[in-house]
Amino acid sequence: MTEHHGDALRPGETALDLPAPNDARLRFIGRLRTPFAGREECPRQGSDDGPECRVELSPEFAPGLDGIEAFSRVELLYWLHEARRDLLTQSPKGDGAVRGTFSLRSPLRPNPIGTSVVRLIRREGAVLVVRGLDCLDGTPLVDIKPVRCEFTVQAAGKGV
Amino acid sequence: MTEHHGDALRPGETALDLPAPNDARLRFIGRLRTPFAGREECPRQGSDDGPECRVELSPEFAPGLDGIEAFSRVELLYWLHEARRDLLTQSPKGDGAVRGTFSLRSPLRPNPIGTSVVRLIRREGAVLVVRGLDCLDGTPLVDIKPVRCEFTVQAAGKGV
Repeated sequence: MTEHHGDALRPGETALDLPAPNDARLRFIGRLRTPFAGREECPRQGSDDGPECRVELSPEFAPGLDGIEAFSRVELLYWLHEARRDLLTQSPKGDGAVRGTFSLRSPLRPNPIGTSVVRLIRREGAVLVVRGLDCLDGTPLVDIKPVRCEFTVQAAGKGV
Repeated sequence: MTEHHGDALRPGETALDLPAPNDARLRFIGRLRTPFAGREECPRQGSDDGPECRVELSPEFAPGLDGIEAFSRVELLYWLHEARRDLLTQSPKGDGAVRGTFSLRSPLRPNPIGTSVVRLIRREGAVLVVRGLDCLDGTPLVDIKPVRCEFTVQAAGKGV
Protein backbone atom coordinates (compact mmCIF):
# COMPACT_ATOMS: atom_id res chain seq x y z
CA MET A 1 0.00 0.00 0.00
CA THR A 2 1.29 3.43 -0.87
CA GLU A 3 -0.46 6.64 0.02
CA HIS A 4 1.37 8.68 -2.59
CA HIS A 5 3.10 6.95 -5.45
CA GLY A 6 5.13 9.70 -7.02
CA ASP A 7 7.78 7.40 -8.44
CA ALA A 8 7.77 4.22 -10.45
CA LEU A 9 10.09 1.40 -9.42
CA ARG A 10 13.54 1.48 -10.99
CA PRO A 11 15.37 -1.71 -12.02
CA GLY A 12 16.47 -3.70 -8.98
CA GLU A 13 14.26 -1.84 -6.53
CA THR A 14 11.97 -3.88 -4.28
CA ALA A 15 8.74 -2.96 -2.53
CA LEU A 16 6.64 -4.45 0.25
CA ASP A 17 2.89 -4.97 0.06
CA LEU A 18 1.63 -3.95 3.49
CA PRO A 19 -1.72 -2.97 4.99
CA ALA A 20 -2.40 0.71 5.62
CA PRO A 21 -0.32 2.13 8.48
CA ASN A 22 -2.28 2.80 11.66
CA ASP A 23 -0.03 2.43 14.70
CA ALA A 24 0.10 6.12 15.64
CA ARG A 25 -1.27 9.37 14.31
CA LEU A 26 0.43 12.68 13.70
CA ARG A 27 -0.90 16.21 13.94
CA PHE A 28 0.72 18.65 11.55
CA ILE A 29 1.73 21.73 13.55
CA GLY A 30 2.58 24.07 10.69
CA ARG A 31 4.23 24.29 7.29
CA LEU A 32 7.71 24.86 5.90
CA ARG A 33 8.08 27.61 3.35
CA THR A 34 11.04 27.17 1.01
CA PRO A 35 11.95 28.43 -2.48
CA PHE A 36 11.77 24.84 -3.78
CA ALA A 37 8.50 24.34 -5.66
CA GLY A 38 9.32 20.94 -7.17
CA ARG A 39 11.43 17.99 -6.13
CA GLU A 40 13.90 18.64 -8.94
CA GLU A 41 14.63 22.06 -7.39
CA CYS A 42 15.42 20.73 -3.92
CA PRO A 43 19.12 20.58 -3.05
CA ARG A 44 20.35 17.15 -2.02
CA GLN A 45 21.12 18.56 1.41
CA GLY A 46 20.55 21.99 2.96
CA SER A 47 23.48 24.17 3.96
CA ASP A 48 24.07 27.05 6.33
CA ASP A 49 24.46 29.49 3.46
CA GLY A 50 21.29 28.31 1.75
CA PRO A 51 18.30 30.62 1.28
CA GLU A 52 16.20 31.89 4.18
CA CYS A 53 13.20 29.65 4.72
CA ARG A 54 10.21 30.04 7.03
CA VAL A 55 8.98 27.59 9.63
CA GLU A 56 5.34 28.65 10.00
CA LEU A 57 3.98 27.18 13.21
CA SER A 58 0.20 27.16 13.58
CA PRO A 59 -0.59 30.17 15.81
CA GLU A 60 -2.07 28.14 18.67
CA PHE A 61 1.33 26.51 19.21
CA ALA A 62 3.27 29.80 19.38
CA PRO A 63 3.79 29.69 23.19
CA GLY A 64 5.65 26.43 22.61
CA LEU A 65 8.50 28.48 21.10
CA ASP A 66 9.26 30.32 24.36
CA GLY A 67 12.99 30.12 24.92
CA ILE A 68 13.89 28.99 21.39
CA GLU A 69 15.94 32.15 20.78
CA ALA A 70 18.63 30.74 23.08
CA PHE A 71 19.58 28.23 20.39
CA SER A 72 21.44 28.91 17.16
CA ARG A 73 20.39 25.57 15.68
CA VAL A 74 17.14 23.68 15.78
CA GLU A 75 16.13 20.26 14.52
CA LEU A 76 13.03 20.11 12.36
CA LEU A 77 10.91 17.03 11.72
CA TYR A 78 8.54 17.14 8.76
CA TRP A 79 6.31 14.91 6.72
CA LEU A 80 7.57 14.09 3.23
CA HIS A 81 4.11 14.17 1.81
CA GLU A 82 4.92 13.16 -1.76
CA ALA A 83 6.90 10.04 -0.89
CA ARG A 84 5.84 6.46 -1.55
CA ARG A 85 6.23 4.31 1.55
CA ASP A 86 6.70 0.76 0.38
CA LEU A 87 10.28 0.65 -0.95
CA LEU A 88 12.59 -1.85 0.74
CA THR A 89 15.55 -1.27 -1.56
CA GLN A 90 16.25 1.72 -3.77
CA SER A 91 18.52 2.93 -6.52
CA PRO A 92 18.61 6.67 -5.86
CA LYS A 93 20.55 7.57 -8.93
CA GLY A 94 18.97 4.89 -11.11
CA ASP A 95 22.44 3.61 -11.92
CA GLY A 96 21.72 0.02 -10.92
CA ALA A 97 23.39 0.30 -7.52
CA VAL A 98 20.65 -0.72 -5.10
CA ARG A 99 20.78 -0.15 -1.34
CA GLY A 100 18.42 -0.72 1.54
CA THR A 101 16.01 2.09 2.35
CA PHE A 102 17.45 2.40 5.87
CA SER A 103 20.97 2.99 4.59
CA LEU A 104 19.72 5.97 2.56
CA ARG A 105 18.28 9.32 3.60
CA SER A 106 15.88 9.19 0.64
CA PRO A 107 12.38 10.59 1.33
CA LEU A 108 10.92 7.27 0.19
CA ARG A 109 10.62 5.19 3.40
CA PRO A 110 7.97 3.41 5.49
CA ASN A 111 7.45 6.49 7.64
CA PRO A 112 8.43 9.43 5.44
CA ILE A 113 9.63 11.79 8.16
CA GLY A 114 12.51 14.08 7.26
CA THR A 115 14.89 15.51 9.84
CA SER A 116 17.13 18.53 9.36
CA VAL A 117 19.32 20.56 11.66
CA VAL A 118 19.02 24.17 10.52
CA ARG A 119 20.46 27.50 11.55
CA LEU A 120 18.00 29.70 13.43
CA ILE A 121 18.24 33.26 12.08
CA ARG A 122 15.39 34.87 13.99
CA ARG A 123 11.92 34.37 15.44
CA GLU A 124 8.93 36.40 14.22
CA GLY A 125 6.04 35.43 16.50
CA ALA A 126 4.89 31.97 15.45
CA VAL A 127 7.45 31.89 12.61
CA LEU A 128 11.11 30.85 12.69
CA VAL A 129 13.35 32.11 9.91
CA VAL A 130 16.05 29.51 9.24
CA ARG A 131 18.75 28.54 6.74
CA GLY A 132 19.61 24.99 5.78
CA LEU A 133 16.33 23.45 4.60
CA ASP A 134 16.23 21.27 1.50
CA CYS A 135 12.57 20.25 1.31
CA LEU A 136 9.60 21.20 -0.83
CA ASP A 137 7.66 24.41 -0.24
CA GLY A 138 4.54 23.58 1.79
CA THR A 139 5.99 20.52 3.55
CA PRO A 140 3.96 19.79 6.70
CA LEU A 141 5.80 20.41 9.98
CA VAL A 142 5.82 17.66 12.63
CA ASP A 143 8.18 18.90 15.35
CA ILE A 144 10.79 21.48 16.39
CA LYS A 145 13.53 20.52 18.87
CA PRO A 146 16.58 22.40 20.13
CA VAL A 147 19.79 20.83 18.91
CA ARG A 148 21.18 18.27 21.28
CA CYS A 149 24.76 19.47 21.64
CA GLU A 150 23.70 22.94 22.69
CA PHE A 151 20.98 21.53 24.89
CA THR A 152 23.56 19.43 26.70
CA VAL A 153 25.60 22.45 27.53
CA GLN A 154 22.66 24.48 28.72
CA ALA A 155 20.72 21.90 30.70
CA ALA A 156 21.79 20.32 33.95
CA GLY A 157 20.45 17.11 35.41
CA LYS A 158 17.80 14.81 34.09
CA GLY A 159 14.96 16.20 31.96
CA VAL A 160 11.23 15.74 32.53
CA MET B 1 -6.79 15.53 23.90
CA THR B 2 -4.07 13.30 25.21
CA GLU B 3 -3.61 9.68 24.21
CA HIS B 4 -1.48 8.86 27.21
CA HIS B 5 -1.47 11.14 30.19
CA GLY B 6 1.42 9.86 32.25
CA ASP B 7 2.10 13.17 33.95
CA ALA B 8 0.01 15.74 35.76
CA LEU B 9 0.57 19.42 35.00
CA ARG B 10 3.18 21.15 37.14
CA PRO B 11 2.79 24.75 38.31
CA GLY B 12 3.12 27.18 35.41
CA GLU B 13 2.72 24.55 32.71
CA THR B 14 0.11 25.11 30.00
CA ALA B 15 -1.75 22.65 27.78
CA LEU B 16 -3.84 22.90 24.62
CA ASP B 17 -7.22 21.29 24.14
CA LEU B 18 -7.12 19.94 20.60
CA PRO B 19 -9.08 17.38 18.60
CA ALA B 20 -7.51 13.95 18.05
CA PRO B 21 -4.55 14.02 15.65
CA ASN B 22 -5.26 12.55 12.24
CA ASP B 23 -3.09 14.24 9.61
CA ALA B 24 -0.81 11.27 8.90
CA ARG B 25 -0.39 7.73 10.14
CA LEU B 26 2.70 5.86 11.19
CA ARG B 27 3.58 2.20 10.90
CA PHE B 28 5.83 0.91 13.64
CA ILE B 29 8.68 -1.01 12.00
CA GLY B 30 10.16 -2.64 15.10
CA ARG B 31 11.08 -2.12 18.74
CA LEU B 32 14.01 -0.77 20.72
CA ARG B 33 15.37 -3.01 23.44
CA THR B 34 17.17 -1.14 26.22
CA PRO B 35 18.01 -1.90 29.86
CA PHE B 36 15.69 0.95 30.94
CA ALA B 37 12.41 -0.49 32.20
CA GLY B 38 10.98 2.72 33.68
CA ARG B 39 11.27 6.39 32.85
CA GLU B 40 13.18 7.04 36.06
CA GLU B 41 15.91 4.66 34.83
CA CYS B 42 16.41 6.39 31.47
CA PRO B 43 19.52 8.57 31.26
CA ARG B 44 18.83 12.16 30.26
CA GLN B 45 20.82 11.56 27.10
CA GLY B 46 22.48 8.48 25.65
CA SER B 47 26.24 8.30 25.26
CA ASP B 48 28.71 6.33 23.17
CA ASP B 49 29.86 4.37 26.20
CA GLY B 50 26.33 3.53 27.29
CA PRO B 51 25.07 -0.06 27.35
CA GLU B 52 24.52 -2.10 24.20
CA CYS B 53 20.92 -1.85 23.03
CA ARG B 54 19.07 -3.68 20.28
CA VAL B 55 17.16 -2.17 17.39
CA GLU B 56 14.82 -5.02 16.48
CA LEU B 57 13.45 -4.37 13.02
CA SER B 58 10.39 -6.39 11.99
CA PRO B 59 11.77 -9.22 9.82
CA GLU B 60 9.91 -8.20 6.66
CA PHE B 61 11.91 -4.95 6.62
CA ALA B 62 15.33 -6.63 6.95
CA PRO B 63 16.34 -6.06 3.28
CA GLY B 64 15.99 -2.34 4.01
CA LEU B 65 19.19 -2.60 6.08
CA ASP B 66 21.37 -3.56 3.08
CA GLY B 67 24.43 -1.31 3.15
CA ILE B 68 23.95 -0.07 6.72
CA GLU B 69 27.25 -1.64 7.83
CA ALA B 70 29.08 1.13 5.96
CA PHE B 71 28.03 3.61 8.65
CA SER B 72 29.38 3.89 12.16
CA ARG B 73 26.46 6.04 13.27
CA VAL B 74 22.77 5.86 12.53
CA GLU B 75 19.87 8.11 13.42
CA LEU B 76 16.87 6.44 15.02
CA LEU B 77 13.35 7.83 15.14
CA TYR B 78 10.97 6.30 17.65
CA TRP B 79 7.56 6.84 19.18
CA LEU B 80 7.57 8.04 22.78
CA HIS B 81 4.50 6.02 23.59
CA GLU B 82 4.04 7.13 27.19
CA ALA B 83 4.09 10.86 26.52
CA ARG B 84 1.16 13.24 26.81
CA ARG B 85 0.84 15.41 23.70
CA ASP B 86 -0.92 18.59 24.75
CA LEU B 87 1.74 20.55 26.65
CA LEU B 88 2.57 23.99 25.26
CA THR B 89 4.94 25.00 28.06
CA GLN B 90 6.75 22.77 30.50
CA SER B 91 8.82 22.85 33.66
CA PRO B 92 11.05 19.79 33.20
CA LYS B 93 12.62 19.95 36.62
CA GLY B 94 9.49 21.22 38.34
CA ASP B 95 11.53 24.16 39.65
CA GLY B 96 9.14 26.82 38.38
CA ALA B 97 11.24 27.64 35.33
CA VAL B 98 8.84 27.16 32.44
CA ARG B 99 9.87 26.94 28.80
CA GLY B 100 8.10 26.27 25.54
CA THR B 101 7.79 22.65 24.47
CA PHE B 102 9.74 23.34 21.26
CA SER B 103 12.74 24.70 23.16
CA LEU B 104 13.01 21.43 25.08
CA ARG B 105 13.82 17.88 23.99
CA SER B 106 11.27 16.53 26.47
CA PRO B 107 9.28 13.49 25.27
CA LEU B 108 6.07 15.44 25.98
CA ARG B 109 5.23 17.16 22.67
CA PRO B 110 2.45 17.32 20.07
CA ASN B 111 4.06 14.55 18.03
CA PRO B 112 6.10 12.51 20.50
CA ILE B 113 8.84 11.34 18.15
CA GLY B 114 12.29 10.95 19.65
CA THR B 115 15.46 11.19 17.58
CA SER B 116 18.88 9.85 18.58
CA VAL B 117 22.16 9.45 16.80
CA VAL B 118 23.69 6.21 18.05
CA ARG B 119 26.86 4.25 17.44
CA LEU B 120 26.36 1.17 15.29
CA ILE B 121 28.27 -1.74 16.84
CA ARG B 122 27.12 -4.56 14.55
CA ARG B 123 24.26 -5.95 12.53
CA GLU B 124 22.71 -9.33 13.31
CA GLY B 125 20.19 -10.00 10.54
CA ALA B 126 17.18 -7.77 11.19
CA VAL B 127 18.76 -6.44 14.43
CA LEU B 128 21.20 -3.58 14.91
CA VAL B 129 23.26 -3.56 18.10
CA VAL B 130 23.96 0.05 19.08
CA ARG B 131 25.22 2.20 21.93
CA GLY B 132 23.81 5.60 22.86
CA LEU B 133 20.09 5.04 23.38
CA ASP B 134 18.30 6.65 26.31
CA CYS B 135 14.70 5.49 25.83
CA LEU B 136 12.41 2.96 27.48
CA ASP B 137 12.67 -0.74 26.72
CA GLY B 138 9.99 -1.62 24.17
CA THR B 139 9.83 1.81 22.53
CA PRO B 140 8.29 1.47 19.03
CA LEU B 141 10.69 2.13 16.15
CA VAL B 142 9.66 4.57 13.41
CA ASP B 143 12.74 4.97 11.18
CA ILE B 144 16.47 4.28 10.76
CA LYS B 145 18.62 6.69 8.72
CA PRO B 146 22.37 6.86 8.09
CA VAL B 147 23.90 9.87 9.76
CA ARG B 148 24.05 12.88 7.56
CA CYS B 149 27.71 13.85 7.87
CA GLU B 150 28.92 10.41 6.83
CA PHE B 151 26.28 10.25 4.14
CA THR B 152 27.58 13.50 2.70
CA VAL B 153 31.05 12.08 2.37
CA GLN B 154 29.92 8.84 0.77
CA ALA B 155 27.26 10.05 -1.61
CA ALA B 156 27.84 12.08 -4.72
CA GLY B 157 25.25 14.19 -6.50
CA LYS B 158 21.59 14.58 -5.79
CA GLY B 159 19.65 11.80 -4.10
CA VAL B 160 16.46 10.12 -5.33
